[in-house]
Amino acid sequence: MEKIRVGLFGFGRTGKIVANEYLQDSIFSLEWVVRKTHRDKHKFASDLLGYEYEAGKIFSIAEIDDSFFKNNPVDIIVDFASSKAVNYYEKAAFLGIKIISAISNYKKQDLDKLLSLKSRTAVLYSPNITLGINFLLIASQVLQEIAPHADIEIVEEHFREKQGASGTAKKLASILNLNEKTNVNSIRVGGIVGKHEIIFGLQNQTIRLAHDSISRAAFGQGAIFASKWLIKKHKGLYSMEQVITEMFKKHLPVY
Amino acid sequence: MEKIRVGLFGFGRTGKIVANEYLQDSIFSLEWVVRKTHRDKHKFASDLLGYEYEAGKIFSIAEIDDSFFKNNPVDIIVDFASSKAVNYYEKAAFLGIKIISAISNYKKQDLDKLLSLKSRTAVLYSPNITLGINFLLIASQVLQEIAPHADIEIVEEHFREKQGASGTAKKLASILNLNEKTNVNSIRVGGIVGKHEIIFGLQNQTIRLAHDSISRAAFGQGAIFASKWLIKKHKGLYSMEQVITEMFKKHLPVY
Amino acid sequence: MEKIRVGLFGFGRTGKIVANEYLQDSIFSLEWVVRKTHRDKHKFASDLLGYEYEAGKIFSIAEIDDSFFKNNPVDIIVDFASSKAVNYYEKAAFLGIKIISAISNYKKQDLDKLLSLKSRTAVLYSPNITLGINFLLIASQVLQEIAPHADIEIVEEHFREKQGASGTAKKLASILNLNEKTNVNSIRVGGIVGKHEIIFGLQNQTIRLAHDSISRAAFGQGAIFASKWLIKKHKGLYSMEQVITEMFKKHLPVY
Amino acid sequence: MEKIRVGLFGFGRTGKIVANEYLQDSIFSLEWVVRKTHRDKHKFASDLLGYEYEAGKIFSIAEIDDSFFKNNPVDIIVDFASSKAVNYYEKAAFLGIKIISAISNYKKQDLDKLLSLKSRTAVLYSPNITLGINFLLIASQVLQEIAPHADIEIVEEHFREKQGASGTAKKLASILNLNEKTNVNSIRVGGIVGKHEIIFGLQNQTIRLAHDSISRAAFGQGAIFASKWLIKKHKGLYSMEQVITEMFKKHLPVY
Repeated sequence: MEKIRVGLFGFGRTGKIVANEYLQDSIFSLEWVVRKTHRDKHKFASDLLGYEYEAGKIFSIAEIDDSFFKNNPVDIIVDFASSKAVNYYEKAAFLGIKIISAISNYKKQDLDKLLSLKSRTAVLYSPNITLGINFLLIASQVLQEIAPHADIEIVEEHFREKQGASGTAKKLASILNLNEKTNVNSIRVGGIVGKHEIIFGLQNQTIRLAHDSISRAAFGQGAIFASKWLIKKHKGLYSMEQVITEMFKKHLPVY
Repeated sequence: MEKIRVGLFGFGRTGKIVANEYLQDSIFSLEWVVRKTHRDKHKFASDLLGYEYEAGKIFSIAEIDDSFFKNNPVDIIVDFASSKAVNYYEKAAFLGIKIISAISNYKKQDLDKLLSLKSRTAVLYSPNITLGINFLLIASQVLQEIAPHADIEIVEEHFREKQGASGTAKKLASILNLNEKTNVNSIRVGGIVGKHEIIFGLQNQTIRLAHDSISRAAFGQGAIFASKWLIKKHKGLYSMEQVITEMFKKHLPVY
Repeated sequence: MEKIRVGLFGFGRTGKIVANEYLQDSIFSLEWVVRKTHRDKHKFASDLLGYEYEAGKIFSIAEIDDSFFKNNPVDIIVDFASSKAVNYYEKAAFLGIKIISAISNYKKQDLDKLLSLKSRTAVLYSPNITLGINFLLIASQVLQEIAPHADIEIVEEHFREKQGASGTAKKLASILNLNEKTNVNSIRVGGIVGKHEIIFGLQNQTIRLAHDSISRAAFGQGAIFASKWLIKKHKGLYSMEQVITEMFKKHLPVY
Repeated sequence: MEKIRVGLFGFGRTGKIVANEYLQDSIFSLEWVVRKTHRDKHKFASDLLGYEYEAGKIFSIAEIDDSFFKNNPVDIIVDFASSKAVNYYEKAAFLGIKIISAISNYKKQDLDKLLSLKSRTAVLYSPNITLGINFLLIASQVLQEIAPHADIEIVEEHFREKQGASGTAKKLASILNLNEKTNVNSIRVGGIVGKHEIIFGLQNQTIRLAHDSISRAAFGQGAIFASKWLIKKHKGLYSMEQVITEMFKKHLPVY
C-alpha cells in the first residue's frame, strides 16, 4: 500500500511532537516540514528528533514559491503553525492537496481564507483535534438532549500560566448553550497539562465526562486520525466533530 | 391529556421511592401497588408517603386473581418486586398492558416467562434502569470502537456491605469484552451509594465516563423515562439501552 | 459507665438527623430536644424517629424558664437550631453544662454571647462540625507550609439551589489566604449533597484533598465526636479544628 | 552563601531529569554524575541537557577508586542508580559525605550496606521521594487514627506496561495495615504517569487523598527538598516520611 504523504506547517513545541507522531506511524511518509525561520533549514526533522534516517526535510516559509507544492508533492498538509500560514499553502488547495488545520487562534481574514478553500479540496478544521475532546463534544451534546433538565457545568484545569478559559472549554460552553462566565470553572495550578470535565447534575445522579491530557502527542494522534479519514473525502469543509459524529452513527449498537 | 395509568409491583425500600417519583409526576396516575405481604393492605401508597390525597391503593399479591387487571385497569405495569412477580402479571400482557421490569436477579424460568410476553405486549427489561448508567453503556461502546487501542478498566465504588462486583459493572465488562476478574475494580467503603467509572487510557490522553448515584430515586426517574417511551411502542422486547441508543441516533449533531 | 446526657436545640431537617445519631449511640442518653414551635410538644424524638422506646422529650423554646436546666439536667447542650438559640441556654453555662454549637450563620451579638460563655463552661463552636472537613482544614494548612510554592484552588459542588460559595469553602479560602472570588470554584448542579476539593498544584505533581458528604448524618457524627472530646475539658473556648489538631499531634508517627 | 555540592549516581531516564532539577536550583552545585557505562565519559551533564555552561562532569562507575571522593569532594551523594551503587560510594560515608538513596528495588545485602552507613554519616533512604506521596503517607496514617472505623482502599493508576502493584501502593497498604491483595486496586491503562488515591469511607462521608504525578521531575524536587533538610543533620538514618512528619509537627496550627 502506498503511504500517505504529509507536509507539516509548524515546528515549534507542538509541531515537533506532531512530526514525531507522523514519523512513528508507518502509514505515513513525512515529506517536509515548513517553519517560520531559517533555523535548521534543509536538515531533516527525523534527524533532529533522534531517528537514524532522513525524513521531513525542513524548509523556511520564505522558500515557498509557486512551484513548491509541485516540486514537493504531498497528499495532505497539516497546519500546526499560526494564523497566517494558510496564506502560504492556499495554492496547494488548487492542486487538490487536502488540508488539516489545528490552529486555535485564527484572525478572521485568515480563517475566511481557510474556509474558502473547501471549494477546491477537502479541508478539515479543528482547533482541538484530540480524539478525546471531540468525543466529549459529541457525547455531551447528546446527553444534554437526553437529559434536558440536567444542570451542566464545566471544570477545566491547566498549568498556572495559562491565561483565560481554555478554547476547548469555551467551545464546550458554546455548544451546550452555557454561560461562559458562570458555568466554566478554570483551575490554574502548577504544571497540569490539561483536564476538562463536564458535569451533568440531575436530582438523583451525576454524570461526569472527563478528559485528561498526558502530553501534546495527543494532538499528533488526532491529526493522524483525521488524516486517515480525510484522505478518502471529496472537497468540502469538515471538522473533527464531524468525524466523531460519523463514527458514532456507524458504531451505535443495533437492536 | 389523559394520564398514563401505572400499576407498581414492589413496595420495599426501592419500590417506595419509585412510587414516590410516579406520585410526583403529573403525567402519571399511580393506580395501585402490589406487595408481597398483607401489610398496609387497601391503604394508599400516597398516604403512607405523606401526601394528602389517595392514590396507589395497596394490594397483597394474594389478591391477584383472574379479574384483577380488568377491574383495576392500567396502561403500564412497573416491576421492582422480585423474580417471581412476573408470574402474577403475565395475564396482564394478554390485555395489552405494557410491562417494565427492573428486576436484577431473575431466575432463568422467570426471566424466560418475562421475555415470552413480548409476543403479547411491549416489554421493557432493564436491570439498571437509570438514565445515567444506560448513557454510559452506549457511550462507552461507541468510544471503544472509535479508540480500539484504548485500554479500558472499570472502577465501581459501593457501601462496605455490598457483596461481589456490582451487576452494572459486570454488564459493562461484558458489553466491552473486558475480563470481569481483572478489569473490574470494586471499592467497598463506608456508605457510598454507588459510583461507576469507565477509564479509557490512550498513550497521551485518558477519557473517563463516570456516574454517581445520589439516591435510589434515580431508579424511579429511569422508570418514568422508560414509561413515556414505551407507551408509544408496539409489542416486542425493548431495553433501556435501546431507548438511549434511539435518543443518540435522534440527537447526534447534523453536518 | 454512666451515659453522657445530651440536650439538643433544633429539630428541623438537620436536627432530626442529629437526634437520630445520638439515639443510636449507646454512650449517650438524649434527654430532651428543644424546638422553636409547639409542634409535637412533649412527644418523644425517639417515637417520631421510629424507635420503640421513649427518649428525647420535645419541648417548645417557649417552655424554657429559669428552672428548666435544673429540672432537666444534661451534661452537654448541642445546638443545631439558629443564631438566637444561645440566648435560651446561656443560663445552662452557669450550671457548668458544656456547649457545642454548630450554627453557621450567627449574628454578631449572638456569636458574642456564645463566645462569652467560655468563662463559665467548655464551649466548642464549629460551623462545619464534620470530621472530614476539619481533617481537610488542618491537613491543607500543613501542606501549604510544606509546599509553599504550590498553587491552591478550591472546588466545591452542591445542589443547584445553594446560594453563594459554601461556608466551608470560604473558611478554607480564608485559612489558606486564598482569594475567595477567584480561587473558590462553585459548581451548582442537580442534587449533589456536598463536595469540597482542595487542589495543590506543583510543577510536577498535583495533590488533592477531597471530602464528599453522603448525608447530613455526618454532622451528627461530628457532634458525637466533639461531645466525647469536650466532656473531659475544662471551661474555655474550643473548636473542631482544635480537636483534630490535637489528634494530629497525638498520632503523628514517631521516629 | 556557599552552594551545596552534589554528586549524583545514575544518569538513566530518571537520573537525567534529577540532574536537570539540581542544575536549575542555584542553591546547589552539581559536581559530578556517575553512570554505569563509559558513555559520554568526561562530558558534562549540563551540556548534554542543553545548558551553556559546564557542570556535572560524567564519570564511569569503573573510574571510582580510593581517592575519587577526596579528589572530587561533595557534600551530598544522591543515588538514583541501582541496588549495587551503594558499594561504590560507601567509602564516601567515611569522609562524612551525606547520602540520599531513592532506590526502590534493593537487594537485601545492598540495603543492609546502605543502612550500616548511618553510623558514619547522615543517610536518608526513601524509595518514593516525592513530597506529595510522603505527605499522603503521613496524613493517611493520622486520618486512620482519627477515624478508626473508616474503611480504607487504595486505587493506583499507571501506564499499561507497569507490572504488579506500585511500590508506593504497597507501602501505603503496609503502613495502613491493609491487605495488599484486596485493598489495592491497580488500574493499568494507556500512558498514565502515575496516580495514587487513598479512599476513606465512613457511613456518611468519604475522604479522598490523591496524588497525580505529572513528570519524573517530581523525584528531583523531592531529592532537592531532602538535600536541604539532610545537610543540617548529624549522622543517623532518616527517611522522607520523617522529614514530612517533622514539618507536620512544626506547622500544625497552634490554639
